[in-house]
Amino acid sequence: MKLWQKETGNKKEVENFTIGRDPEFDIILAPFDVLGSMAHAHMLAKMGLLTKEDNETLQKGLKEIYFEIEKGQFQIAPGVEDVHSQVEFLLTERYGEVGKKLHSGRSRNDQVLVDLKLYYRAAIRELVEEASTLFQLLLELSEKHKKDLMPGYTHTQLAMPSSFGLWFGSFAESISEDMGLLQAAFDLANKNPLGSAAGYGSSFPLDRTYTTELLGFADLHHNVINAQNSRGKAERTIAFALAGMAGTLNKLASDVCLFMNQHFGFISFPDDLTTGSSIMPHKKNPDVFELMRAKTNQIQSVPNSISLILTNTTTGYHRDLQLLKEEIFPAIETMKDCLSMCTFMLKSIKVKKDILQDSFFKHVFSVEVVNELVLKGLPFRDAYKKVGLDIESDNFAPDQSVINHTHEGSIGNLCLAEIQEKMEKAVIGFNFDKIDGAFSALLR
Amino acid sequence: MKLWQKETGNKKEVENFTIGRDPEFDIILAPFDVLGSMAHAHMLAKMGLLTKEDNETLQKGLKEIYFEIEKGQFQIAPGVEDVHSQVEFLLTERYGEVGKKLHSGRSRNDQVLVDLKLYYRAAIRELVEEASTLFQLLLELSEKHKKDLMPGYTHTQLAMPSSFGLWFGSFAESISEDMGLLQAAFDLANKNPLGSAAGYGSSFPLDRTYTTELLGFADLHHNVINAQNSRGKAERTIAFALAGMAGTLNKLASDVCLFMNQHFGFISFPDDLTTGSSIMPHKKNPDVFELMRAKTNQIQSVPNSISLILTNTTTGYHRDLQLLKEEIFPAIETMKDCLSMCTFMLKSIKVKKDILQDSFFKHVFSVEVVNELVLKGLPFRDAYKKVGLDIESDNFAPDQSVINHTHEGSIGNLCLAEIQEKMEKAVIGFNFDKIDGAFSALLR
Amino acid sequence: MKLWQKETGNKKEVENFTIGRDPEFDIILAPFDVLGSMAHAHMLAKMGLLTKEDNETLQKGLKEIYFEIEKGQFQIAPGVEDVHSQVEFLLTERYGEVGKKLHSGRSRNDQVLVDLKLYYRAAIRELVEEASTLFQLLLELSEKHKKDLMPGYTHTQLAMPSSFGLWFGSFAESISEDMGLLQAAFDLANKNPLGSAAGYGSSFPLDRTYTTELLGFADLHHNVINAQNSRGKAERTIAFALAGMAGTLNKLASDVCLFMNQHFGFISFPDDLTTGSSIMPHKKNPDVFELMRAKTNQIQSVPNSISLILTNTTTGYHRDLQLLKEEIFPAIETMKDCLSMCTFMLKSIKVKKDILQDSFFKHVFSVEVVNELVLKGLPFRDAYKKVGLDIESDNFAPDQSVINHTHEGSIGNLCLAEIQEKMEKAVIGFNFDKIDGAFSALLR
Amino acid sequence: MKLWQKETGNKKEVENFTIGRDPEFDIILAPFDVLGSMAHAHMLAKMGLLTKEDNETLQKGLKEIYFEIEKGQFQIAPGVEDVHSQVEFLLTERYGEVGKKLHSGRSRNDQVLVDLKLYYRAAIRELVEEASTLFQLLLELSEKHKKDLMPGYTHTQLAMPSSFGLWFGSFAESISEDMGLLQAAFDLANKNPLGSAAGYGSSFPLDRTYTTELLGFADLHHNVINAQNSRGKAERTIAFALAGMAGTLNKLASDVCLFMNQHFGFISFPDDLTTGSSIMPHKKNPDVFELMRAKTNQIQSVPNSISLILTNTTTGYHRDLQLLKEEIFPAIETMKDCLSMCTFMLKSIKVKKDILQDSFFKHVFSVEVVNELVLKGLPFRDAYKKVGLDIESDNFAPDQSVINHTHEGSIGNLCLAEIQEKMEKAVIGFNFDKIDGAFSALLR
Repeated sequence: MKLWQKETGNKKEVENFTIGRDPEFDIILAPFDVLGSMAHAHMLAKMGLLTKEDNETLQKGLKEIYFEIEKGQFQIAPGVEDVHSQVEFLLTERYGEVGKKLHSGRSRNDQVLVDLKLYYRAAIRELVEEASTLFQLLLELSEKHKKDLMPGYTHTQLAMPSSFGLWFGSFAESISEDMGLLQAAFDLANKNPLGSAAGYGSSFPLDRTYTTELLGFADLHHNVINAQNSRGKAERTIAFALAGMAGTLNKLASDVCLFMNQHFGFISFPDDLTTGSSIMPHKKNPDVFELMRAKTNQIQSVPNSISLILTNTTTGYHRDLQLLKEEIFPAIETMKDCLSMCTFMLKSIKVKKDILQDSFFKHVFSVEVVNELVLKGLPFRDAYKKVGLDIESDNFAPDQSVINHTHEGSIGNLCLAEIQEKMEKAVIGFNFDKIDGAFSALLR
Repeated sequence: MKLWQKETGNKKEVENFTIGRDPEFDIILAPFDVLGSMAHAHMLAKMGLLTKEDNETLQKGLKEIYFEIEKGQFQIAPGVEDVHSQVEFLLTERYGEVGKKLHSGRSRNDQVLVDLKLYYRAAIRELVEEASTLFQLLLELSEKHKKDLMPGYTHTQLAMPSSFGLWFGSFAESISEDMGLLQAAFDLANKNPLGSAAGYGSSFPLDRTYTTELLGFADLHHNVINAQNSRGKAERTIAFALAGMAGTLNKLASDVCLFMNQHFGFISFPDDLTTGSSIMPHKKNPDVFELMRAKTNQIQSVPNSISLILTNTTTGYHRDLQLLKEEIFPAIETMKDCLSMCTFMLKSIKVKKDILQDSFFKHVFSVEVVNELVLKGLPFRDAYKKVGLDIESDNFAPDQSVINHTHEGSIGNLCLAEIQEKMEKAVIGFNFDKIDGAFSALLR
Repeated sequence: MKLWQKETGNKKEVENFTIGRDPEFDIILAPFDVLGSMAHAHMLAKMGLLTKEDNETLQKGLKEIYFEIEKGQFQIAPGVEDVHSQVEFLLTERYGEVGKKLHSGRSRNDQVLVDLKLYYRAAIRELVEEASTLFQLLLELSEKHKKDLMPGYTHTQLAMPSSFGLWFGSFAESISEDMGLLQAAFDLANKNPLGSAAGYGSSFPLDRTYTTELLGFADLHHNVINAQNSRGKAERTIAFALAGMAGTLNKLASDVCLFMNQHFGFISFPDDLTTGSSIMPHKKNPDVFELMRAKTNQIQSVPNSISLILTNTTTGYHRDLQLLKEEIFPAIETMKDCLSMCTFMLKSIKVKKDILQDSFFKHVFSVEVVNELVLKGLPFRDAYKKVGLDIESDNFAPDQSVINHTHEGSIGNLCLAEIQEKMEKAVIGFNFDKIDGAFSALLR
Repeated sequence: MKLWQKETGNKKEVENFTIGRDPEFDIILAPFDVLGSMAHAHMLAKMGLLTKEDNETLQKGLKEIYFEIEKGQFQIAPGVEDVHSQVEFLLTERYGEVGKKLHSGRSRNDQVLVDLKLYYRAAIRELVEEASTLFQLLLELSEKHKKDLMPGYTHTQLAMPSSFGLWFGSFAESISEDMGLLQAAFDLANKNPLGSAAGYGSSFPLDRTYTTELLGFADLHHNVINAQNSRGKAERTIAFALAGMAGTLNKLASDVCLFMNQHFGFISFPDDLTTGSSIMPHKKNPDVFELMRAKTNQIQSVPNSISLILTNTTTGYHRDLQLLKEEIFPAIETMKDCLSMCTFMLKSIKVKKDILQDSFFKHVFSVEVVNELVLKGLPFRDAYKKVGLDIESDNFAPDQSVINHTHEGSIGNLCLAEIQEKMEKAVIGFNFDKIDGAFSALLR
């Protein structure tokens, strides 16, 4: 049963090949499809393209469906093509012909576009929330371990003193900076495409500004071709934002896998969070972080997969665009899983104390000692020479327990408050409340 | 001659393998290296780590070098390792020992990071300027051709009426939206890493906030590990922004190549902008747009190349990072070329008039006629049936010259002012003036 | 219930995060896991590490399970970790302790590796078969349409005469050439890793050559570290082979989408194989080929996704490798779908006759006429000038119905027999019979 | 001066944008262009399209140019468009009108295609030679260090005993397996496209089989459209082969960077092959291997860059293809550099002795001891329990100096002869001699 089609159906083989994973994705889009239809109906009524009574009936019917979806009572009946058809089918079944009036001045193309944009907004919000939770934990761990020194590496070679406070804090600040790409993605998702119809607009006198307000969009894609071409562009931009965050978690996971290696042994997790071997007691396989590394790599591959699908295609809708859902929907879920799993694991991380006090690490302090001498008045050249000779003659015995770094963002001055402020400012920038307000008003 | 190295040099083979394209990139970084050093010297003086006199000498010397660079009189002498060494070498040669005092409290790592960030800021600014010029031309073309109708395609199939006004305008708005990713990239580039030293901070009492102000940065990477890890992250984010813009130009170029095909014949360019065949007079090869298509694909591959270099590496500097310059520097140049070449070509574009008046295109108007009947009061179902029957019996003869689309962003209401406003707001967001102010103060 | 684990289980959260899509993939691997175990047991018996009786019991039990899998009666019980555990569990349940003896001299790592290699061999065989069917159809279409001329394009501009015979034939030969990468992938899959244990070999006196023969492998990975590192390398190589074939189908699909455009109108398909619009009778959306274009792009993205997962990791097993299945298993299925769907669609393709006889295409013949004059004795320069002047004065009226191309691979000499021979030679090179022979012997 | 163009030239801006890096690449192609022309002229003469005298003059002239190129005396004169024009220009300048007769029955398209194929064949040969040298060294190192034990890791965790013999040998065998993709790439490059003209064949009676023989090609692309479409496909396949080898070197480089870390300290290089710090004596930065890691990642990104350029384009030449040279030419050079640099470095590698004798590694032997007990007759379950209890009670004291692995490819049986044989067989498969023979005959 296809609403837009009068006579012939497609061959079974064609159906199977073309439907893909749409049924599972359509369930995700369902609540947003209903909200989009509510706004569209209000607008049609405002413009005199729908009677007040018809609109009231539609709003009632749509609200019912919305809450059925919320309760998990909604499904796409066998033989019904997609979520849009199912909603229209339910409306018509329950309220008669009025159900069919909903499609005036709208095309399947801009309807899907609205559904996707509303879903992406919601998904980004969830990502921001998961990221905020992890961010907060990292700040706490940074504060808790600010005195726990560890070596810092360059070229994977021992280089300078570092600390767990610094290490945890680095990922916190990195997450706060990852909000920039998420904001760019959100801004693109937060533009109303409704009214662009099949990508070339409509001869109906639509009020696109009105639906923009009703759905809590920050703006609209004005140009209707651009609205259509935003399909793909929105997904690519979200993929960039996911890849950015994935980069941060990939580095964290790579560090964890290295630091859990027995030669390092800097960190550990309880037995039930790692896999081990009963006969090799020191083996604690960091499976979660290895998979986090691999999953964040999968996510980092998504921008490219999307670019390959989009590139060299001309203006206007192509069925190719359908497959973008297969790329971006799972990537969003994987990213949320990685963020929450990272939080889950780090809650149990144990950090080795007093690492740097082992004489194995003493050369890591050579620059510290040179600088100390310089600050005490010795010319750099002389200080450097003295330390060099001490090392050569094996007389180098620095104090390996304390580091006097005082500048902004250093071991002794982690600036956690400043980093927290950045994150808060970033989160406020999304203005999620506006969405809540709009949806509440629609569902009132 | 390596400043940091006392005794042994590297084997010739190692030198050749490791130096790569750095000499050519170093010339690009030279002015920024000098500016970074000026700020660092001021800060050292402020903190009492350099005498007022030494600082004045250094500022004088650095300013000289800066203007030599500006005049193209700067080069890296044979045997000198890199731009940083060359600058120090010149200072020492001209002003003696004071030249060596510049390196206190700074590592090669954060020095390069500052150079790169300052360069990226400048490069993004140039991209924004090139994009603005193209944007403005697209708006003008949209206005000029707002009455010139053309067909709109879905599935590469004739679908609906469109216009050149709409088509040009779609790319203008798309460019305005591409500014979002550029802003995210700019924000990351616009954070001060100076003082992070080798990635673990310094025991010198540095004032990082002061250098942040002096260099016109909007903020600093507080956490020093995060500052170091921003290398790679900055490049990847710029690559995302470039890929976003490349996506817009790729679609424009793909459209142009199709529309220049003789079956379409919608647009043309003067002979000296295309390549042709003297014996096939209708052949006008769109080489520029084919190469633009390919170049924007090269750019779209860069985020992935960068991800491959970065992924699965642990915290801290790795020499791998050097190769990021080979990825991002040429991509920036290619993007600027594509933008300016697109502007150059579109200045001469000729658009075919009255395309839609050919009866070949009449079915494109079927939805228009249905809607018209509906707006006149006929129920949709009846209107649809009437038009269907007219088409079937070959009695369908719509007016193919005028389209009555009135809503926001439609053929009859292009909203160019609104689109212009978006772009202006986006450009203002970069606040480039702050950079000018800071650099003027340093060079005063 | 994990066979290798004695005491503690993993937290539920860890289980969920780490299990991924393994249960669905394990069902695919099940028959191969059983075959691998049969070979391993035979070898253990040969080396005296298993009694003759125990081996006979194991062979009987494994054969039972194999045929249960074939009949779809096999599933992994709730709480059982994976396919390997389920097989061992069934053996033990049915035949007692002997079931546990199977694991001697084998690690989970090389067991999985064998399963994967056997599966990849089988999958490549199916791909070769699907490709052969399509190849054969393309040859038939080439022969059938060898007289049907069409224009050939360069730069998407009309250029030279071509024919449907040439067009169909080009994809046939391309497929025959795609076998090269498939052969390279097959060769890598066709090497025995069994006996490499956890990647560092075993102190048991295994006979790896014997299992190589039993499983019909062409060779073994001799070095055990290399055997382990072939995980990932095998998948990447298969992904390259898939991407190669995907490139061929992508071009075919791109051509189809263009040639179905109404301006071209060169080819068509029955209504029930396209989607259309009842009110726009000329609209035939090529959804299948648009999705084929997009799916072949997804496939082309897989080598890169795999590279991202693998790169910068050190020697030895990492849990990251598990995710390769998520990349390559679906890609194999998608490729098979695309091949069979392409065959399905092309069976119904209709080709427009006499395209080139329209005077619209006359300039396409200009080079033909020049060459004709040259072959008749006119110097090239004069022939060229004459044709040029004829075109200029609109006196150019070539015979647009016949083309005299005679050289190898040209319109008049398609060399289909030669192309067929290449494909046959390529297919024989896989020597699939050897696998059949080995498996028959095992299951006898 | 463009040979194919009569009247108008392109605007300077267009020239600059479209020429790209072709001048530098054209010099690389020059000798192959001349060889291709020699074969073409011979064929024209054979078919009566060129007099015997003209052919002799052309062969003489072309041979002169070939040896000028060999001696580095060839360059493309200012204002001359490309290598093809320069060769024709020289011939005409030196021998008159006959120089222009060379272009009959050939198009710029198939001329470039032949040049590229001949170059790719030569490049693959150089890669095989560099790879063979490295392979041989790895075998030697494997033999030399076959008794030097080291730990083997899984999950980056200490797991089992391994050896340097095994480790070096693994890369040797991996390289021998990398030949498979190179062979697939070579086979595609080793097919003659000459005679495909602009991609649709020619009305001249060409003998493509004859030029196939003259140029030592193993076969021809029969179908002329397929010959043209092999542009891009050849490059992508070479990129796959390069990426495969890059994967092998990337793992080697990743291992080296880890094993040089001070916590491991397994291997070292002379001071003049690493970079260090005079004040941190234990710091030996593995810059060469870090860059090798990054460069092999760049190479691994090339298949994707090529796919992005090619995908969704239709049959026939597009100017986009020009940019493939920018992708594949540097990748070939980088790969050769990485191979030769790897050989250069490994010649000086120093391996730490007796690593495993430290009690730190004793648990690595737990499985060895279990197996030993089993082979002595103890049931596995009992052996496992005994070793487990010994470990728990700290009574586990295995002999950490000797490993008894005897099966194929294990520590005690490295199978270097078998691996060598594989490599030799692979190299013979390329049949490079045939090329030498053909070129000698042409240049005789």
